[in-house]
Parts: sequence; C-alpha cells; structure tokens
Amino acid sequence: MHDTKKILAVTGIRSEYDILFPVIDGLRQSPDFDVEVVVCGAHLSAQHGDTQTKILEDGFVIADRIDSLYATERLTQRPKGISALISGLSQTVERVKPDFLLVVGDREESIATALVGNYMDVLVAHIGGGDPVFGNADDPVRMAVSKLAHIHFATAEPYAENLHRLGEEAHRICFSGTPGLDNIVNEPHIGLDKVSDFIGTALHDYVVVLKHPLSSEQADAAAQMRVTLQAVSSFCQQHHFKAVVIQSNSDPGANAMAEVTQSFRSDACVFCHTLPREIFVNLMRHAKVLIGNSSMGILEAPTYGLPVVNVGHRQQGRLNAGNVEFVEYDVGLIQSAIQKAALDGAYRETIKQIRSPYGDGHAAQRIVDFLSAIERKDFAKWHMKRQLVG
Amino acid sequence: MHDTKKILAVTGIRSEYDILFPVIDGLRQSPDFDVEVVVCGAHLSAQHGDTQTKILEDGFVIADRIDSLYATERLTQRPKGISALISGLSQTVERVKPDFLLVVGDREESIATALVGNYMDVLVAHIGGGDPVFGNADDPVRMAVSKLAHIHFATAEPYAENLHRLGEEAHRICFSGTPGLDNIVNEPHIGLDKVSDFIGTALHDYVVVLKHPLSSEQADAAAQMRVTLQAVSSFCQQHHFKAVVIQSNSDPGANAMAEVTQSFRSDACVFCHTLPREIFVNLMRHAKVLIGNSSMGILEAPTYGLPVVNVGHRQQGRLNAGNVEFVEYDVGLIQSAIQKAALDGAYRETIKQIRSPYGDGHAAQRIVDFLSAIERKDFAKWHMKRQLVG
Amino acid sequence: MHDTKKILAVTGIRSEYDILFPVIDGLRQSPDFDVEVVVCGAHLSAQHGDTQTKILEDGFVIADRIDSLYATERLTQRPKGISALISGLSQTVERVKPDFLLVVGDREESIATALVGNYMDVLVAHIGGGDPVFGNADDPVRMAVSKLAHIHFATAEPYAENLHRLGEEAHRICFSGTPGLDNIVNEPHIGLDKVSDFIGTALHDYVVVLKHPLSSEQADAAAQMRVTLQAVSSFCQQHHFKAVVIQSNSDPGANAMAEVTQSFRSDACVFCHTLPREIFVNLMRHAKVLIGNSSMGILEAPTYGLPVVNVGHRQQGRLNAGNVEFVEYDVGLIQSAIQKAALDGAYRETIKQIRSPYGDGHAAQRIVDFLSAIERKDFAKWHMKRQLVG
Amino acid sequence: MHDTKKILAVTGIRSEYDILFPVIDGLRQSPDFDVEVVVCGAHLSAQHGDTQTKILEDGFVIADRIDSLYATERLTQRPKGISALISGLSQTVERVKPDFLLVVGDREESIATALVGNYMDVLVAHIGGGDPVFGNADDPVRMAVSKLAHIHFATAEPYAENLHRLGEEAHRICFSGTPGLDNIVNEPHIGLDKVSDFIGTALHDYVVVLKHPLSSEQADAAAQMRVTLQAVSSFCQQHHFKAVVIQSNSDPGANAMAEVTQSFRSDACVFCHTLPREIFVNLMRHAKVLIGNSSMGILEAPTYGLPVVNVGHRQQGRLNAGNVEFVEYDVGLIQSAIQKAALDGAYRETIKQIRSPYGDGHAAQRIVDFLSAIERKDFAKWHMKRQLVG
Repeated sequence: MHDTKKILAVTGIRSEYDILFPVIDGLRQSPDFDVEVVVCGAHLSAQHGDTQTKILEDGFVIADRIDSLYATERLTQRPKGISALISGLSQTVERVKPDFLLVVGDREESIATALVGNYMDVLVAHIGGGDPVFGNADDPVRMAVSKLAHIHFATAEPYAENLHRLGEEAHRICFSGTPGLDNIVNEPHIGLDKVSDFIGTALHDYVVVLKHPLSSEQADAAAQMRVTLQAVSSFCQQHHFKAVVIQSNSDPGANAMAEVTQSFRSDACVFCHTLPREIFVNLMRHAKVLIGNSSMGILEAPTYGLPVVNVGHRQQGRLNAGNVEFVEYDVGLIQSAIQKAALDGAYRETIKQIRSPYGDGHAAQRIVDFLSAIERKDFAKWHMKRQLVG
Repeated sequence: MHDTKKILAVTGIRSEYDILFPVIDGLRQSPDFDVEVVVCGAHLSAQHGDTQTKILEDGFVIADRIDSLYATERLTQRPKGISALISGLSQTVERVKPDFLLVVGDREESIATALVGNYMDVLVAHIGGGDPVFGNADDPVRMAVSKLAHIHFATAEPYAENLHRLGEEAHRICFSGTPGLDNIVNEPHIGLDKVSDFIGTALHDYVVVLKHPLSSEQADAAAQMRVTLQAVSSFCQQHHFKAVVIQSNSDPGANAMAEVTQSFRSDACVFCHTLPREIFVNLMRHAKVLIGNSSMGILEAPTYGLPVVNVGHRQQGRLNAGNVEFVEYDVGLIQSAIQKAALDGAYRETIKQIRSPYGDGHAAQRIVDFLSAIERKDFAKWHMKRQLVG
Repeated sequence: MHDTKKILAVTGIRSEYDILFPVIDGLRQSPDFDVEVVVCGAHLSAQHGDTQTKILEDGFVIADRIDSLYATERLTQRPKGISALISGLSQTVERVKPDFLLVVGDREESIATALVGNYMDVLVAHIGGGDPVFGNADDPVRMAVSKLAHIHFATAEPYAENLHRLGEEAHRICFSGTPGLDNIVNEPHIGLDKVSDFIGTALHDYVVVLKHPLSSEQADAAAQMRVTLQAVSSFCQQHHFKAVVIQSNSDPGANAMAEVTQSFRSDACVFCHTLPREIFVNLMRHAKVLIGNSSMGILEAPTYGLPVVNVGHRQQGRLNAGNVEFVEYDVGLIQSAIQKAALDGAYRETIKQIRSPYGDGHAAQRIVDFLSAIERKDFAKWHMKRQLVG
Repeated sequence: MHDTKKILAVTGIRSEYDILFPVIDGLRQSPDFDVEVVVCGAHLSAQHGDTQTKILEDGFVIADRIDSLYATERLTQRPKGISALISGLSQTVERVKPDFLLVVGDREESIATALVGNYMDVLVAHIGGGDPVFGNADDPVRMAVSKLAHIHFATAEPYAENLHRLGEEAHRICFSGTPGLDNIVNEPHIGLDKVSDFIGTALHDYVVVLKHPLSSEQADAAAQMRVTLQAVSSFCQQHHFKAVVIQSNSDPGANAMAEVTQSFRSDACVFCHTLPREIFVNLMRHAKVLIGNSSMGILEAPTYGLPVVNVGHRQQGRLNAGNVEFVEYDVGLIQSAIQKAALDGAYRETIKQIRSPYGDGHAAQRIVDFLSAIERKDFAKWHMKRQLVG
C-alpha cells in the first residue's frame, strides 16, 4: 500500500492563496499526498469577495471554515483573530490528523498554524521565512514562525542563509523561490482587449496601484492613500495613462483607505475588487508601472520586468532586484518617480533585463520534492528541533 | 508630575509566579511603576491549589482573571489555552493600556503575552530568553517569544549571547540572572522543626522529589513517576531518609503522575501540594538531594549548594553548574545516583562550592533599573524591531 | 453609608443603544446606582460608524470592549459572536461584580447577557420580553432570554401578560413601555432647515427608508432592497418627494443590501449612515412616511403619528397601533401603499390620533423606580426562579 | 434513492450519554438516519474517566471533539464552557450540515446546541423539556432550551403539558418517557457476584451513594458530602451494610466533594469512578437504597422499585413517583430515612409496586418514529416557530 501523507494547508486571504495555490496543486497531483485546506479570515468575508468560492472552484477539499476576521479596526482585531483560529484549527487538526501543516508568510494564520503544529505534534512546513523585512507587526511574527516551524521553504537564497543564522538546522531549509512566480510562468497569455473587457475600461498605457495599510501607521492610512491617488491621477491625466486601483487587504486602516478610494473622483482611475488570477497576471504583464507598497513589487515584479514605485516604508529591508524606487508620501516626489518608471526608456530597458532573486517560477516542484523525501519513519527526528543558535 | 509607567505582568502557575514575584515586588516599590497582574491557567484551578489567593495575599492588584486551563490531557489543551488567553488578555490590555507587558519563561502565557504585545503596540519584557534547553514543546516557544519580545532579561550570560546570535539587538538584552534566586537570598531562615510541622512529618535526612511530565513523552508519564518513586523509596528505606514528593505542574501527563503518587504506598514518602514560598525555600535549604526533572535543579539548586539527580531528558541543553547528574529511567541507576548525591561527602563538598551561572540573587533590582531607564519619549524606537540576524 | 447598586449594561448596536440610553441615563442620575457599559458588536466596527464614540460622548464609563462581530455573512456569524461575547463578558462580570446586568431586546447580546447572569449569580434585567413577533432567528431568542432573566420590563401591556403566561412570576414583570419613546419626548425640536443641512439636501416633502435583512430570507436581501428602492424612487419622482435612506443593521444580508443602495442611482434618494439621535428624531418628526421593516415603524412611529409601509414579513405578530400597512415585495403594491400613506389626508389624520400601545415616553423612570425598590437583602429571593408554567 | 437524514447528537458527560445512548443506537439502526456524535466537556477529561472512549467502543462516529470544560471551580466555568462549545459546534455544523441536532437535558451542551441550531437553521430535537425542577442554574436553562428547540421529547406526561403551557405548539411535543429507562429494560442481568468482582468488594446488603454539588450551594459542597457520608457510614456499620459511593459530576463543588470522599475513612464505604453501564444497571438492581441527590432517584429508581433518600434540595419540583424521601443535611435525619428505606418491609413493598411516571423503557423507539415521520419537504414549517403563549 502506498503511504500517502496528509497535508493540511491553511489560508486566510486571496493574496496568500495565490502563493499557496501552485504548491497545493502540485501536492495533490503527486501520488504521495492528500491535501485538504482550512479556510479562514478574509476568505470568508463577503466584503472581501468571499474568496473561499475560488478555492472550491479550484477543486480543493475544505476541511473546515474558521471565522477569524473581526469586523473592527481596533488593535484587538488581529490577536483575537489568532485566538479564534488557534482554537478552531486545534479542533480540525485533532479530527483530520495531518502529517504536515502548510502555511505561507507572516499573517495571523502563519503563527496560529505554527503554534498548533508545535503543540499538537504535527510537522509545520512554512513558506517565506528568513525574510528580513521590518516595519510592520507581521515581521517579528514571521521570525517567530521560523523558530516554531520544522521545515522552511525560503523564497530567496539570502533568506535561506538568514534562517540558518537564526539557528535553524541546515537540513530543514530549502531555497525554493516564491511560488507566486509559478503562477506567472504557468498562466496562459491573454490579450489586453480581454483584460480591458473584464476591468470594464479600455486600457492602453496604464499603471496599477496596490496599496495596503501599515499597522504602525494606521492613523495615516487615509492620508497616505489620498496622496498616492493624487499623484497617480495627475500623472495619468498629463500623460493620457489610466490607473487600475485594486482594493487593499483587510488589515486595520483598510477601511479608511477604501473610503478614500470610493470617494476619489478621477477619470483616469478605475477601481477593482480582487481579480481572478488569469486577469491579474495578464494585467501585470501589460502594465507600465506598479505603484503602492504591495509585496508584489518586490517579489513578483522583477519576473514581469516591471518597474515599481514603492510609496512609504513598507517592504523595507527586503531584497530589491533593482526594479523598486522608494519614495516618501509627497505628491511631487511620487509623480516624478512614476514618470521615470513609466517613460524613461533606458531605465525601463535595464529593468527588463533584471534577474529575480526570488526564484525561477518552479518553486512548487521543489517543495513537493522536498516533502516527498521526508519519510514517515524519520518523523520523530524532524519533530525534535535542537534550538542551537547560528 | 511624575511619569509613572504601567506594568501588566501575566502569570499562569505558581512555579512561574515565584520567579516573577521579586520583580513585580521591586517594581511596585519603585516610584516609577504601577503594577497590575493578570492571573490565568493553573492559578485559577482548585485542583492546583487555587494559587491566585497567594497573589492577593501578596497585595497585588489583579487586573483580570482569565481561564486558560482546560480539564483535558489531550494535545489540544495547550493551544486552546493559548487561544483563551490571547482573547482575554487583548480585552484586558485594551482597558488597562499598559506601557509594558512582563512575562517569564516558555509556557503558554509567554507566547500569548508576546503576541498580544506585538499586535497591540505594548512593549513586551521577557525574562528567560536565549535558554537553549530542548526536548519539550515549550522550547521552540521560548525562542519564538524572544523574536517577538522587545526587552530581554537573560538568566545566564551565555543565554544573553544566544539572544544576540538570534538577531536580537544588543541594547534590548540585559543579563539579570534568574529572579528565582532572589527569593533564596531574601527569604528568612526557618528551622527544620517548623518546616516539619508544616509538612506534617518529622524531617531529618531527606530528599525532595519534583517531577513533571514531558509533552513528548506523555504516554510514559505514569511509568516514569513509578520508577522514580520506587528508586527513591528503596534508597530512603535503606538509609533512613524521608522523601518529600511535591505535586507536578498542570501539563499533559500530570494527571497520570498524580494517580501514581496517590496510590503509591511507602512509609518513607510524604506527598505535598504546592508549598508556600517560605516553607519551600527552607525545605530546599535543609534537603540533601533534589530528584526529578524540575528546572529548579538547574537554575536554583546551585545557589543552595544542592546536588540534583535529574531523571530523564528534560532540562538537557541547559547550562549545568556541575551539580546535576542525568540518569535514565532505571531504578538501579537512579538509586545509585541518589546514593552518591546524598552520601558521598567529597562530591557534596564540591557542589557546596559551586558558583551559580544563573546570577547572584539580585536580578529584580537589575530588571527594575533597566526598565526605569527606558523613557517614554523613546518608546517608538523600542517598538521598532529591526530583525537582523546575528 | 448609602448602598449603591452597580449596574452593568450591555449594548451591541446603535439602534439598541438608543433604547437603552434613557434608562442608563436615568440610572446614573439616581443616587442608588453606579452604571458601567459593556460595548460590543457593531459599536466597535468602523464600517458601522464606530458608535462606541457616541457612548463615550454621552459620558458613560466603558467597563470593557468585547469584539463580537465577525466580518462574515455566513450563518456562523451570530453563534460565534455570542461565543465571543459570553467569554469576554464573563471576564468583565468577574472583575466588576455588578448587582444587575441590563440588556435590551432579542439580539446576540441579550442571550449572552442572560446566560452569563444566570450562571454567575447576577440578577438580569431585560427590556422587551413577551413580544410575540416571529419570523426571525432573534424571536425564539427573546423568549429564551425571558426564561433566564430575573426582571422583565415589558414594552406593552399585552406583552407583560405574555410573560406571565410564559410562567414568569408576576412580581418580576413591570410594564414600562419602550424607552425608545423617551427619546422622542425628551429630544428638543430642531427645524427642518437644520436637519436638511446635516443630511446635505434640502428636504421638504420626504419619506424615510429603513430596511433590514431577515435571517430567514438572507438570499433575497439584495432583491428586496432593490424592489423597495425602485418603488420609493418612482413615487418620489412622480410626486416631488425626497427619500432619506438609512443604512441597515449588521445582520447577514446587510452587505448585499448596502451594495444595492450604493449602486442605486436616483435623484430622489439620499443615503445616510447612522444619524445622531437629535437629527434622527427630528428627521422622523418632519417625515411623511416611514418605509421598510424597522421595528421603529411598530414601536415608535405611533408616537410620531407617522404612517408606515412595512415591506415584507418582518415585524409580523407584533402589536400594531393601526399605523402600519404590510405589503409584499412588489413595486406596484409598495408604491400604492406609499401613496396612500403620504397623500391620503383622511388616513393620515386617523393615524395622528392613534395612541401608542408602547407607553408614554416615561419608561426610564419606571425602570429606575422598579430597580431602586429591589433591596439587597432580598437578592436571594430574586435569584431563585420558580419555573412554574402559566 | 433513500433520503437519509443526518443527526448530530451532542454529549458532554457520561450520565447524559447514558440517556442518549438508546436513542442514537435506535437511530443508527433505522435506515432513515445517519448519526454522528459531538463529544465535549467531561467526556474529554482524564479526571472524569475520559469517557469518550466509551462512545468509540459503542461504535459511533465522533464528528468532532470540543474542549468545553475549564479546570476551575469559579462561576466563570460554565458560561466560558458554553462559549467554547458554541464556537466549536458552529464549526462542526457548518461542515457536517446535519438535518437535526439532538441533545438531552439542561446542561451547558443543551443551550449551546439549541442556540447553534436556532441561528444556523438546523432543527433541534431536545429530550427532557418541561421538567419544572428548580434550585439550580441549570433549571432556567432547560426552559430557555425549550423555547429554542423545534421538537420536544418529554419524559413525563405532565412535562409534555408544561411545554404546551410554555407556548410550544402541540405538534412539536412527544411524550416519549426518559430513554434512561430503556437501558434498564435492555441491559442483560448479571449476578451480584460479578458486580462485586468489578467493584472489588463482596457485596450483599448495600446502598448506593450518588451525590452532586448544587451551584447555588457550592460553598457547602464539602460539608454536605461529609454529613452524607457520616450518616451512611453509621447506618452501614450498625446494620452490616456496605455503601458504594460513586464519583460526582464535574460541576463547581465537585472537587471539594472529591476531597472529602478521598480522605473519608470507613470500612463500610467503597469509592468508584464512573462505572460501565452493564455494571451500573445491575448494581442498582441489587441495591437496597439510593442515597444522594442524583436525578436517577427521581427518574430511574421507580423502574428499579428502589427507595431513595434525597439529601438536600436538588430535584425539588420534579414529579416524584412516591419512592423518594427528602431529608435535610442532618446526620440523624439522614440515618433514619436510610433505615426506613432499607429495612421497613411494608414501605419497601409499596415502592416495588410503584408505576414510573417517566415511561416504560421504550422511549428510544418513540423518538425514532417521531423523527422518521418528519419529512424533508416540511422542514421549513418545522423551522418556523410561532411563539404563541399558552
């Protein structure tokens, strides 16, 4: 009898699911694994597009749905969400008895999953450790998750080294690259006309805006969004560009940002909720510039050869392939940076040649292979972490 | 007006409270601080001696009581306890608005407190980080707490260095020693007759047994206790010693251990619930050997000049002053080790001379001074952790 | 020394707080009572206007804030909200040690409060029992709350009789009338010009729309709102009326309704978030018709002499003073009903003369007097419910 | 295709599971039903015998295990347990999508289940409503559950009438009798020698003691147990009886009672944990008297023809077949009552002839038949409760 190993993947928001998807898709195609998914957080919120339906459409078994997003913007939102998730996930893990828990990143689901795995004797595989980004409450959480997880898939080579310096044993660390790039490699090309149809506006030259609130700057969220949109709108009107503005994540401050975008009036700007992956990838393929502070600018834009204007301090500390300019919240500075990114031919040419430090779009296969190689008879060894420091 | 800073200390079990006590006692005596205590876990359990009453007797303000100990021994017990604690503590922190959260060790309350502080913008001061002990589900948690906490009080100099190697910035780390030793230094001496009265048995030559279950060896808990008691009992009967056996903590396996002790019949053994600190300290002062696997053997016994027989694998990886012998679960081996520890005069003399690596019994003052020196105007700097690796 | 009794009032949403306000305002003005408020649910949601600020402005002490509104529209939303509230409220009650818990209505906070009081030996005073409305998941909850509460303030005389028939002892039941009417009696008159300024549109002849989703008809929420708005808009355009459309509550279906209102385009319609009480009361005083399915139409509109068009089945079973017409979801039928209510002089005159069965606007004083008369020495008797049936 | 209906039964403690067992056993033997069980509370506690194993041995599918028993005796224990159970059960119900929730009695699981069913559109079938017992925090809960449940199985005919008077519609009410009696009818007879073997003491003439704490008299729990044991012990020593003392349930006060029993020394008394059903039933068949305050004395003892001495006020208000004498906490009074019950031949003969008002031991079949007759096409009608009062 083939010894199938059971994977329970945990996901809380669409952006993170997009990174997870190539991995769990690869795992279910392997004869070595059974995959089920725990869905929580913003996936279960109508206001955030009820994106659990996407997971069902992708054909995954949903092991449980766990409400973990409170309708508040107070600082209690996230710890209480973790509380709800730990409790619900413990119930699921006891029933499903997975061999591995799988989780991505630095959000609430990462630490909840790592803790449940640690206390309930389930191996935790974590994608995205060792990333030295700082400035957000998420960042120390990512490090804490690394100290709890048993298996680390690093998205960049220097991040794998960081994990080693954090005291993680070498055999637990695999440089896979980020699976987000797998989507770019895998997704069929669609013409700009079809993307335009979906968006509902004819797109030729355009920029994309993707801006999230920063927990440490929550009070400024509305003002930050306003300055950004003013700069984007001025640039677009002057140069006959359009701007596609995509809804923020669910972090505290997001509501204030949404109110600004909903009341912002500019012929140049189109506002969208979450987009299907095939539209999103092709929207990025045809875009001229990405503006905002999404991790996409750092992690995925190099693979698109796309220049990025990162407004504000989110994403600092991370490996930058050279395609990202950091600017302060100043309409003039942002506008100049967009102008260079969108119109300076030499600069754009350099960025097209950039090689991404975040892998080659074949992360999922590396992750599947690494997990396949872990044999049940060695589980006890994998469980026992010897917490030596580097 | 004096700028008093508010400290919210979190404690879940008597053994941990004993370490915390000298610190919060020092803080409330300083004009710089207001102290309140959140009480959770085993403190609220009649079965564990309802030790919240001790905290009230010590005169502290209890900010809230948070139930976080489920009456189960399944692996869900601890993550669900963390869940309850995070939720309740978030509620408390929002109301009390402390400047610092203070917590000790590696138990559920340490990670719950560190997460609440991280997400709710409260500085977290942690006592006991950088300790490389391994083998228990608690151990990776201790490391995760260190990556989340803002201020570290290390109980040994090499542990302070470990924190630095984990990527914690030097200015956040203070080698204070363990405050557990402060109790030994501070506690008035009581004669053995009074200790005997309290225990209810006349004590002359005696050993103390303090044995906890290990999460990774839960299924063996009863057997481990039985073997230990058999060895202790044989030794005692042979050499006219008594053994004072103190109740285990509340971890999974504790119930099984309790059943063994309750049904164990030996004239040499006396069984006690949690003891008041003044009795406990003096019981240790007069004891000949400590047997079991309590952290006391590593951390506090050197200060008493007390030989320790550590049965099993708990506590491995930790700094050992030289007073601890590790033995396997074998009646003969345990008995021999006790014999050497209790009766070998030269060995006992060496141990009396040992210098503890865990400080000098003045940890509390160092902690108070360190926290006093952190000025409110610098809080933002203290909040922003730059997660560099060593 | 005066024996002050401590009241802990629990509130989860603005509409309910408006009913509670005259009561807790009366209680704090009495020398017999100390009042604190627990704030939960939609009060803590930015999306619902962050109405906890209103409670602070009204000068009440907030004992604790308890997150109990999950950002989902799934059926789990409400039981999980109750779960969070019971847990948080138990923590608060243990700290505050109130003599009475006070709560209004049939929402999640009513059953959570009644259960906490029942198990924690605190007398529960409930406003709004015995109301035989049915059709919503809230309705059986109201009855369950009555079986748990110790003191009942009924909003109508037949409802007091219903409580008696449910087996509640006569001495526990007080017909106070609804405190919502106290606001109408107490609120100073403001001219239509000032109301118009606040709303941002010049109002002359206008109707008010206040429509909530029904849990048993959640899937139809959007369609129900659309039909209603179409009828309202047609009527208004034909007769030069305006319609002031006020945001729904937070029940499942509310999001779908909000999307309809946000995308509905009609020059006749103005959309508002929650309004301050002084604006709301005066908006109703000057309105021609109330349309929708708010309990206001049944409970408060008679006091304004205001005709109501109740669209759909919510509110059925309740005492109707004669001012309410029930219509199905049909544009034509709704429009005809509005026409009669707004323009039929004889009908309007009858309604002006109606006497409200819901009291005289002096409910708060009756409630304060009743609670004042309960002496501490009799608490034990008040606690012991003898659950006889009618 | 046969339309199988899915039943999710919820159970939290062994005594309640014994009542539930004949029903879910009957349901799974019917082709109309699939049965799964949610296990919570004391079933999951090693201290209470880890009785979930019994449910597994009986061959039921456990849908989920939900921790809902906190290790505390504070008044927070039960509301917080309900909180944990509502949250976990909502997760289970969303996944399992049962047609019916089934629950017994007045404990935490009854109200948690009724609330989850009410809000999540699942029909709730409740066994044990309409019982007018009072004096405990459970009692109003039972009534609240009746106002929420959709289908009522009454254990006595007058209780069915009470439900009707509470406003429950006649078609929802079925007088089934208590399924606890089915066990007595179904359980094969075992000789006293085998029972003695199991208990570990040779039994001839003996009484059984089953005493639970009362929430409203928690502080007196230890004293109540002591007085009871003293009376029992005196009687037994004088008349050469034995007493089999069975462990209390998990309510607050149980710990204090356990400490008394554990330290009570009497040659006449044997102390047991929870017993297997076949032993328990036969122990009762051969017993002379039942002493304490268990509901068994009221509900099941008549079927055994067994006289009962009910010590204290628990169980007052309930139908008494005539086999129960109520006595105060007084050693002399208790002893006299035992003497009459054990040795007065005429009295004992009367009680043997008693007919139980709690049914004939065929409750399970009536329940299965009633639920079988509810057709899926009528579910909507069964959901909509019209809350008329009697």
